[in-house]
Amino acid sequence: MGDPAGIGPEIVAKSWAVRALRSLPQFALVGDPAAVRRVWSGPVEAIDDLDEAAAVFDRALPVLAVGDAGPVTPGAPEVGGAKAALQALERSIALVRSGAARALVTGPVSKAQLYGIGFNHPGQTEFVAERCGIAAEDAVMMLAGPSLRVVPITVHVPLAQVPSLLSVELIVAKGRATALGLTRDFGIAAPRLAFAGLNPHAGEGGAIGREEIDILAPAIAQLRDEGIDATGPFPADTLFHARARAGYDAVLCCYHDQALVPIKTLHFDEGVNITLGLPIVRTSPDHGTAFGIAGRDEAHPGAMIAAIALAGQAADRRARA
Amino acid sequence: MGDPAGIGPEIVAKSWAVRALRSLPQFALVGDPAAVRRVWSGPVEAIDDLDEAAAVFDRALPVLAVGDAGPVTPGAPEVGGAKAALQALERSIALVRSGAARALVTGPVSKAQLYGIGFNHPGQTEFVAERCGIAAEDAVMMLAGPSLRVVPITVHVPLAQVPSLLSVELIVAKGRATALGLTRDFGIAAPRLAFAGLNPHAGEGGAIGREEIDILAPAIAQLRDEGIDATGPFPADTLFHARARAGYDAVLCCYHDQALVPIKTLHFDEGVNITLGLPIVRTSPDHGTAFGIAGRDEAHPGAMIAAIALAGQAADRRARA
Repeated sequence: MGDPAGIGPEIVAKSWAVRALRSLPQFALVGDPAAVRRVWSGPVEAIDDLDEAAAVFDRALPVLAVGDAGPVTPGAPEVGGAKAALQALERSIALVRSGAARALVTGPVSKAQLYGIGFNHPGQTEFVAERCGIAAEDAVMMLAGPSLRVVPITVHVPLAQVPSLLSVELIVAKGRATALGLTRDFGIAAPRLAFAGLNPHAGEGGAIGREEIDILAPAIAQLRDEGIDATGPFPADTLFHARARAGYDAVLCCYHDQALVPIKTLHFDEGVNITLGLPIVRTSPDHGTAFGIAGRDEAHPGAMIAAIALAGQAADRRARA
Repeated sequence: MGDPAGIGPEIVAKSWAVRALRSLPQFALVGDPAAVRRVWSGPVEAIDDLDEAAAVFDRALPVLAVGDAGPVTPGAPEVGGAKAALQALERSIALVRSGAARALVTGPVSKAQLYGIGFNHPGQTEFVAERCGIAAEDAVMMLAGPSLRVVPITVHVPLAQVPSLLSVELIVAKGRATALGLTRDFGIAAPRLAFAGLNPHAGEGGAIGREEIDILAPAIAQLRDEGIDATGPFPADTLFHARARAGYDAVLCCYHDQALVPIKTLHFDEGVNITLGLPIVRTSPDHGTAFGIAGRDEAHPGAMIAAIALAGQAADRRARA
């Protein structure tokens, strides 16, 4: 569900409305049925057990009733909503871990609200990793769109800290996890990884910074020694146009905006966040709660639709493997 | 001309070939006629005085013969070529400063080759600024494409130095010059400037870095006090998709890749580098010498065509002002 005061319930319902057109796998919303009914006039059926979802899915959006968000006002997040979002997340993880569901798709949450109720993880990704018994640093965030996949090597840290956080070990670990994830969840047998340089023009041979020579190049060499098709570091600015995108399966970027700027520029309404390195499949739309437009029927469901579709595809691939 | 071993001569010739289709203003290549004939089989006429160009332009590419590049091999830059490129640049600047030409379009050069012959400016932009009597820091680099204009506030410096280089004074100066340039060269009466934050999510209220609060916000406030429509700082990743681009005339970015990644992702074959703040109009295609494909008739002239067109438009606007 994500935060019930955000656009999560609306975009799940809108995804259900195009289930046939977009060939989506069966899904159920886990959360408060009232949160959906408040913002959507289509058919909703509350269920008590996920087993009932299959029979409902053709005629209504199945909502596995978990948590009571209380009197939520769209656009105005409150403690009750944050608690309900967290309950829904806990229950959803348990359903996927037990095998009752094949994949987890998380809706957008308000980190500020979650912190207010004692949530002490940086975000949902780290929470899911912990519940799966995986160290947070081994859960790799990938953003995937129709023509581009990116992995930020560092994520929510001040830009000034990025150079000191980069290390050969970190880059090699992210490269390995990315290659494995591309094979396991995207069905790419021999993934091609491209690495973006940290500095302008990838440092221009050391003239504009040395991280490419001292850190990125040795990490890429090590990945190649391990049999992974890793190339770079390349100048970031010439790495994301259409012809360049044909040359790799994913780009590993040194920092948040280097990865997020190109993917959101190209695929703003259809970007999916997929967590690689987990024992379960987990995806999420690549946007926030959008409180500013919640409850106004203005939310674009493209990223949620893409997140549900990719979750189904990844689950299929894992089941066949 | 730019470096005669690069794609400069070829893309100028290819631009001439589409002069009518693209409604380009009259232009002449300044440089070695042999450098063009070596890579292009179309009509070329050497002229000794720029006044002759108008009569030639309809039937052939006029080349104002300046410098002798010697026996250039496309793709293999040499000292002779760098010297010829610099002579052509000097002469071109003089022609525009004197009023004999209305605008300067520079071809791509090899900085490494130029440094080898004693050129001691960071790039052509700074050289042109000096010849015009303008301090390098007052010559503002803007990259312009059909749907996006960006200005990097810092340019060719290691990423690690970017946070310490940002200051209220620098940002205000770049903002003023950008607003003035948008009016003077693009005909936008009341330019709307958007500023990108330095940190992920524009610092998220100080949680992920304080440069937005301590430096960017005060600079933007000062620009607003001066009557300039400046907004932000905004998270960079949500600033460049199609709907966002409708909300501003240019984005000022904190560093090279933050500006260059989105524009080259969107407009790889048509990006123009225009220098704001000069007494003359100066544009350039937003790419390098491409030695790897020089002389193979593979170079895409799109950015050179756009650079010539924009130079003509900007010169027209200045003439009418």
